[in-house]
Amino acid sequence: MTSAQIHPVTLIGGGPGAWDLITVRGMRALQDAEVILADHLGPTAQLDKLCDISSKELIDVSKLPYKKSISQEKINELLIEHARAGRKVARLKGGDPFVFGRGFEEVQALADASIPTTVIPGVTSAISVPAAVGIPVTQRGIVHGFTVVSGHLPPGHEKSLVDWAALARSGATLAVIMGVKNAPAIASALIDASLSPSTPCAIIQEGTLSTERAYRCTLGTLAQTMAEHEISAPAVYVIGEVAGL
Amino acid sequence: MTSAQIHPVTLIGGGPGAWDLITVRGMRALQDAEVILADHLGPTAQLDKLCDISSKELIDVSKLPYKKSISQEKINELLIEHARAGRKVARLKGGDPFVFGRGFEEVQALADASIPTTVIPGVTSAISVPAAVGIPVTQRGIVHGFTVVSGHLPPGHEKSLVDWAALARSGATLAVIMGVKNAPAIASALIDASLSPSTPCAIIQEGTLSTERAYRCTLGTLAQTMAEHEISAPAVYVIGEVAGL
Repeated sequence: MTSAQIHPVTLIGGGPGAWDLITVRGMRALQDAEVILADHLGPTAQLDKLCDISSKELIDVSKLPYKKSISQEKINELLIEHARAGRKVARLKGGDPFVFGRGFEEVQALADASIPTTVIPGVTSAISVPAAVGIPVTQRGIVHGFTVVSGHLPPGHEKSLVDWAALARSGATLAVIMGVKNAPAIASALIDASLSPSTPCAIIQEGTLSTERAYRCTLGTLAQTMAEHEISAPAVYVIGEVAGL
Repeated sequence: MTSAQIHPVTLIGGGPGAWDLITVRGMRALQDAEVILADHLGPTAQLDKLCDISSKELIDVSKLPYKKSISQEKINELLIEHARAGRKVARLKGGDPFVFGRGFEEVQALADASIPTTVIPGVTSAISVPAAVGIPVTQRGIVHGFTVVSGHLPPGHEKSLVDWAALARSGATLAVIMGVKNAPAIASALIDASLSPSTPCAIIQEGTLSTERAYRCTLGTLAQTMAEHEISAPAVYVIGEVAGL
């Protein structure tokens, strides 16, 4: 068996959703690719504005069989398979590859297969989606830091790695992603840790897309507001004084 | 006096430094601009790769008289003056306009002058610079959140809005920007709050540029490592298990 020349696999942060919020470097990597493995997040719906997709193989990994349960292992296998076939492979992810993007797991899996990777950062949704509705995560004189945290596990869950009480006291703006389902528990935990129920909040669903919806509320009314408006993923909520600006 | 047509002023996040880490939308806004007010951060040194600067007026606000002390007010005045003259004004900033970029202050100043703004997010240095040296700020099973915090004031300073002890306990990765001078005090405060001195750290100066330098150390040796290598701004340091990956 002869070996094909192996090209580095490029992990590309596609940004929050709007097609033109990918970086110039990311766009050029897409143009150079022969195979693109894309998620349902990021600029996937308008890839044709970034490159000539008719000349490429596009694999939407969110549409593979077993949609909900497609394992990261299967994605890793596909990346390795196409790279070993000597093809230029781009892995397009929503947001930034290293912000809850499991990008590092893909880098490791490829490294284990002796395939090099190049990582192209992206605009993370956790910052850019609030910005799209006018909310800065930092503001001089008000807040000097922000925390981006996953809400996929409720506070106190045995596998949770987050100390929500400490975050409540930290003084930093909180931007919670993947936290729609656990919003009631998260709000309660923060209030129990003495963050005021009157703390301003903002909820943004599908930020930067034409389907964007945004609501302002307070920490005390966060859960109720999300339920009333039937917020669903992908959504970000911001907790802190900046949400009231 | 007749009034010129007023165009919205565009605040553009230029990304961490490399010219092609600006977004496609940001590049197009630069191409469309007649006047560009740029910082020394971001892709300023290679603007010619993004647009035809010979056809534009480029104002490097970092080179204005009173370099160190040029006030935000002066920048605001320039933005307003050029916008009122009917020109298409782009304000190019390093990183993201709303991440310690004072972008919201500019939005407010322009709003006070009845001039609308458009904000184009950028890749923030706090995430992309660690990524450039292979460090993910989140990693499944290790850490479910990260905090970006300004280190421009030492812990305990009367104007500090950051509870460093709470951050030490939060379980989140810490990415400290503008914290070169106060690194010894910040490391001490985190250790005093029971964050282990053996916690992995990484220091990156001028990340994504050809002059990039990076060093690995621990929280206990952070200050010494920065002194030995004479780290200077712009630099980011990352504190947390991910810095050891």
